[in-house]
Amino acid sequence: MTTRQDCLDRDAADPLGAVRDRFSLPQGVIYLDGNSLGALPVAARDAVQDAVERQWGGDLIASWNKHGWIGLPQKVGGKIARLIGAEADEVVAADSVSVNLFKLAAAAVSAQGGRRVVLTEGGDFPTDLYILQGLAGMMPEVELRVVAPGGIGAALDERVTVVLLSHVHYRSGAVRDMAGLNAAIRAAGALSLWDLSHSAGVLDVDLNRDGADLAAGCGYKYLNGGPGAPAFLFVARRHQAALRNPLSGWMGHARPFDFIDDYTPAPGIDRWLCGTPPILSLTALSAALDAFDGVDMKAVRARAGALGDLFIERVEARCAGKGLVLASPRDATVRGGQVAFTHPQGWAVMQNLIARGVIGDFRAPDVIRFGFAPLYVRRADVWDSVEVMGEILDSESWREARFQTLAAVT
Amino acid sequence: MTTRQDCLDRDAADPLGAVRDRFSLPQGVIYLDGNSLGALPVAARDAVQDAVERQWGGDLIASWNKHGWIGLPQKVGGKIARLIGAEADEVVAADSVSVNLFKLAAAAVSAQGGRRVVLTEGGDFPTDLYILQGLAGMMPEVELRVVAPGGIGAALDERVTVVLLSHVHYRSGAVRDMAGLNAAIRAAGALSLWDLSHSAGVLDVDLNRDGADLAAGCGYKYLNGGPGAPAFLFVARRHQAALRNPLSGWMGHARPFDFIDDYTPAPGIDRWLCGTPPILSLTALSAALDAFDGVDMKAVRARAGALGDLFIERVEARCAGKGLVLASPRDATVRGGQVAFTHPQGWAVMQNLIARGVIGDFRAPDVIRFGFAPLYVRRADVWDSVEVMGEILDSESWREARFQTLAAVT
Repeated sequence: MTTRQDCLDRDAADPLGAVRDRFSLPQGVIYLDGNSLGALPVAARDAVQDAVERQWGGDLIASWNKHGWIGLPQKVGGKIARLIGAEADEVVAADSVSVNLFKLAAAAVSAQGGRRVVLTEGGDFPTDLYILQGLAGMMPEVELRVVAPGGIGAALDERVTVVLLSHVHYRSGAVRDMAGLNAAIRAAGALSLWDLSHSAGVLDVDLNRDGADLAAGCGYKYLNGGPGAPAFLFVARRHQAALRNPLSGWMGHARPFDFIDDYTPAPGIDRWLCGTPPILSLTALSAALDAFDGVDMKAVRARAGALGDLFIERVEARCAGKGLVLASPRDATVRGGQVAFTHPQGWAVMQNLIARGVIGDFRAPDVIRFGFAPLYVRRADVWDSVEVMGEILDSESWREARFQTLAAVT
Repeated sequence: MTTRQDCLDRDAADPLGAVRDRFSLPQGVIYLDGNSLGALPVAARDAVQDAVERQWGGDLIASWNKHGWIGLPQKVGGKIARLIGAEADEVVAADSVSVNLFKLAAAAVSAQGGRRVVLTEGGDFPTDLYILQGLAGMMPEVELRVVAPGGIGAALDERVTVVLLSHVHYRSGAVRDMAGLNAAIRAAGALSLWDLSHSAGVLDVDLNRDGADLAAGCGYKYLNGGPGAPAFLFVARRHQAALRNPLSGWMGHARPFDFIDDYTPAPGIDRWLCGTPPILSLTALSAALDAFDGVDMKAVRARAGALGDLFIERVEARCAGKGLVLASPRDATVRGGQVAFTHPQGWAVMQNLIARGVIGDFRAPDVIRFGFAPLYVRRADVWDSVEVMGEILDSESWREARFQTLAAVT
């Protein structure tokens, strides 16, 4: 059985331990919600201040060239590429995950003449489903096929054009078999489109090794780019010439500053840009990604797995008999950075945890979810968070506290 | 003839004069490019720092409720509404101008069954044309009809579904007759879609008085929201129930936090949101808009007109015979916030001006463009900028200086 001292010793010996110093974390808080909003990197704080005061305030319009704003989407894309097993010229930062999924799914449908079925699983992150519904509403020839979890293989046929799947499920943290699914999708003649929102920055994603065609992902979770940070997208080199971005804004033009009437898509990844990017938010993301400098993604994944394993072990020991049921894979090799438990009063449990400074989140109806961002969460944090949860569940008062907290929140 | 002392006197008497103190402007620079990137409002600087350090860094995920991030798109929309003659529930901040034009044009096409022609003018801001080309590429039943400037009236027929026009032309600054065109568009049974990028924040736009149906506009020009600030869009109340956003991301859902599989559009303007908005950039825009507090848009427009008139008068007096030809309307009632001149060596003239601290911009092949953002540009700035241009054109050396500057820039 692990002890708190074991946690401290292992933290001290962990080569990733020093990376925590790259973040500004509040005192008195154990932050286990980096899967919703990553913590603030010190470099991002400084970079945004510089972008506002010296660049925007001082150099004004000249900053587009002088401070490299015009190339920031590609620069950020290049930094993300290393984290997801892509080449620098296969990734660009742009828009939101939702908008990027629309671009890529629409392009896949338009490029593959006779095929008109877009395939996905129910229960995946809602915006992914909503975007496909919007696409089908706009293109009546598109048929949206939503299958039950695990049903992709059986649903693949010669009418399928693109398959959209989350790499890691937003609720359970379950990891899909990217290589295996890509092989099946390719064999059926379709394209794969991966949502990496819950895997980029926490798993050792390897899109090219695993044969992915297209992907999009989130900048504000494990990439720590700040609230609503721009998203990214990936198009494998072999598809870059054939696929067209239907959101053909000027930043994706081959010569945007020629100001001509006709759209010509830029060669390569640049064509996936659309409008002018939000530079302040993009600057935060760019600097945030430097927290990964010198960090091996295999070590990041291993630490995420170890933190999750420790959390499960401690919850099942310290909180036994209190109604908590594991809702994530027990096997760390198929689990992302978060661990979910169900509890009949899950909302109240989480409100009590938050009131005690342990920040996770709640997903209706009964899921409490804890994220273990390996760049700044320590084993001792995991130990302490479970101790707090144990004290809450042992107490007589937590159900009453629920209503106090509710009133305070509402 | 105006003197420099007249300029100083009129600046001192101008009730808008004190608004300049709401901006942080660099020393030694006359900034006449607020039509490309608005200057930094002091409040925006402070708000971004607070959003980064106290909100993101300190309160982390709780900030979505605690600091009102979740309602920021609507809050910003409400601030913009007053500036453009709309109701607060008709405007929301979201995405980029390009993405918003796509949403609105696609919605208009989808809502009007038999009509399939999208009508616009050539030579308008390129991204507007590019977006319509992308839409037509995605929806083969759409016919894009691009007419020569001034040709909208003659091209309106029973097949037209939506007409996209810039309110103020990005190059010449010419203002279109919004009320007259809206009447003609409505009589033809089509919808109007206005790009307000070069009019919001500088003209007394009045969308509802003038019968506009749909609009989008830019947050980083005269609204001073910072580089690549989120854009906004307007949907008149009478159309809000019928039109659907094809980019149906989760932020536009009626109940985004229910995490259900089926998309139901939010009632009202909220359905035009898509993905998670870039909060740092949106925070800057929100605070920047407070620079308009207590400011009458009719006074803003009047001042823009007076500054442009003064610039034209001074250029034609001080720089007579030097090859400059007015490329904007002479009449301030049909001119936006900028004034353009052509010059055979326009690029070199602008490079020399920039080297002397007078910041305007250049549009190929021969247009030099000067923006007079009425919140912070003074009559004395206009006087001094023309003096500098006169000195440059009087000198023997400016054509050689061109090549030095070119080398420095390249």
